[in-house]
Amino acid sequence: MPTICIAVPLEPRYEVLVGRGLLAETASRSAHYSARALLSDTHVAPLYAGALGLPEATRAHLLTPGESSKNLDELERTLEFMARTGLDRSACLLLLGGGVVGDLGGLAAALYMRGIDFVQLPTTLLAQVDSSVGGKTAVNLAAGKNLAGVFRQPALVLADTGTLATLDAEEYRSGLGEVLKTALVAGEALLARLESARAELAARDPDLLAEVVAECVRTKAAIVARDPTEKGERAKLNLGHTFAHAIERVAGYGAIPHGVAVGTGLALALRLSERLQIVREPALRARVEALLAAFGIPTTLAALRTRYHAQLEPSELVRSMRLDKKSVAGRPRFVLPRAVGELALGIELEDSALETVLEAA
Amino acid sequence: MPTICIAVPLEPRYEVLVGRGLLAETASRSAHYSARALLSDTHVAPLYAGALGLPEATRAHLLTPGESSKNLDELERTLEFMARTGLDRSACLLLLGGGVVGDLGGLAAALYMRGIDFVQLPTTLLAQVDSSVGGKTAVNLAAGKNLAGVFRQPALVLADTGTLATLDAEEYRSGLGEVLKTALVAGEALLARLESARAELAARDPDLLAEVVAECVRTKAAIVARDPTEKGERAKLNLGHTFAHAIERVAGYGAIPHGVAVGTGLALALRLSERLQIVREPALRARVEALLAAFGIPTTLAALRTRYHAQLEPSELVRSMRLDKKSVAGRPRFVLPRAVGELALGIELEDSALETVLEAA
Repeated sequence: MPTICIAVPLEPRYEVLVGRGLLAETASRSAHYSARALLSDTHVAPLYAGALGLPEATRAHLLTPGESSKNLDELERTLEFMARTGLDRSACLLLLGGGVVGDLGGLAAALYMRGIDFVQLPTTLLAQVDSSVGGKTAVNLAAGKNLAGVFRQPALVLADTGTLATLDAEEYRSGLGEVLKTALVAGEALLARLESARAELAARDPDLLAEVVAECVRTKAAIVARDPTEKGERAKLNLGHTFAHAIERVAGYGAIPHGVAVGTGLALALRLSERLQIVREPALRARVEALLAAFGIPTTLAALRTRYHAQLEPSELVRSMRLDKKSVAGRPRFVLPRAVGELALGIELEDSALETVLEAA
Repeated sequence: MPTICIAVPLEPRYEVLVGRGLLAETASRSAHYSARALLSDTHVAPLYAGALGLPEATRAHLLTPGESSKNLDELERTLEFMARTGLDRSACLLLLGGGVVGDLGGLAAALYMRGIDFVQLPTTLLAQVDSSVGGKTAVNLAAGKNLAGVFRQPALVLADTGTLATLDAEEYRSGLGEVLKTALVAGEALLARLESARAELAARDPDLLAEVVAECVRTKAAIVARDPTEKGERAKLNLGHTFAHAIERVAGYGAIPHGVAVGTGLALALRLSERLQIVREPALRARVEALLAAFGIPTTLAALRTRYHAQLEPSELVRSMRLDKKSVAGRPRFVLPRAVGELALGIELEDSALETVLEAA
């Protein structure tokens, strides 16, 4: 399957390339910068840093893998590394890894000298379909996930689908949660494709994965191009995320993979949507739950608790949602499905109604 | 003297108001936000927080005064304060104080939930004429000054010149250093005004100060509007700053006030400009040195060393300049005066030539 090129028509325009073996193009595609430095983590760097073709002398900074690295202390260490390496305003930071490397590294590049270029080299399914595209950078605060960040677009994204073969099962599952979210945003074609290709997805068929990653990127790129700073339509991409962020925070960052929390969040959003009589397709929840089950993602809070040995008290989840970025005056705002590809934005409701749904899930 | 209103015609447009008693308008001019919180420092808040007219329940976070607070740890504490206070995306952070509060607070607002509004309430001469206008936010890294930040414009600036009466002599002097820099950027009219009004400046005549602050803001606003992210012309405003940043870093942040370092930096820039035969007005250095002397700002490195008990080795200063944000591939770039209001940008030179000038100063 040849490389697929998706343009994100923002100012400046950038491209997302999807295909096998793309990491090897990193060196040539970043050769015009005054200097380059690499940010990765201690799990990914030994696997793939050698594939980038960079000069031996290229300096690298490696994070400890996992969500717990996504904080201001690690950001500071990354910025001091960039300064020590002597990067100037015409230099570039290469971000090799999953969502943590991409989100923290994008923020470091956005802040360093008030902004230098960065290239996303996502190595997880979740990062390829979601976090590497669209320019949301962030670190977590103690008070909540992704509470400190900026919008800053990458200069280039190279999504090498060859890296997906080595993902552990849990990382892969986490990516499938975001893929399913994207399908509910994109529409029937992608959702039906996932349903018809369950076996190939489970086998990580390389051609199917390239097709699915590219379709997710196309969906996201189109939305981001219309609304880069989330003034409106981009909120669609937060489907399942108000639940997911609360779940991740209450469980402790890193205890439950982001995309798994998103997946369970999709099921919860559909329950809430049914209760509020917003959803118009009676079969939608069953379709989503069937895919979640096929992916090995819990469809209820109860199952999530058991699987990850987490408490996840409904009252605590509701308290955490009040601090969500999407909340207004302490009231969380939900994105809820009406139908495949059709979402209701900005839905507010009473804490008690929310707790009732969570108690029943 | 009535309030002076200067518009900064960026997108979105904002206004800088200059005049006595403006702090009292803070509450009414920020009443439309969903919530407000105050960032200030333990020196300024007791003097002026009460003048803002905010509701008693308004939450405040106070920094320790001084440049040593301008770091990522204090930024994190500020962000956690904002989250604890329950600020949402429609809230506003009020920044009451000098450059440290304004620079760090502007960055906190830019990062919190990927950006909320902030209002600058500058209480020092330096902040009123320079740092509160133009949207440069930053904190320092160990590796250098202002190395981590973003461009983000304030929603409003209220420069209450009534606060200048209580500045200590050193703070006032520091502001005059930036005023003099602005005059060299702006042109003959402002420079001649400073020369003719030395006595009123020394006496902190309120009408003269309002006039000078407004003229400095006009100069800066016009440049910032044409070049908000320093791709070109805005570099003019860095006159004296390559020297100043190195001086501040080598002396240890906070040991020498920023505007004092800038003032001495102007004299050094003129020496360098003479040596490189860039300056066209033979009398310019004498005029600048006479004003610096009147303000009580050292005109040589030797005098600066004596006054602040700092080492300031030329070789160390040169090493520090290589890390300056304006450096390209490790070579510092200077802004040097040709004449009043006429500057040469992007001047590079050998380390040895630079050290020679510093040795002689």
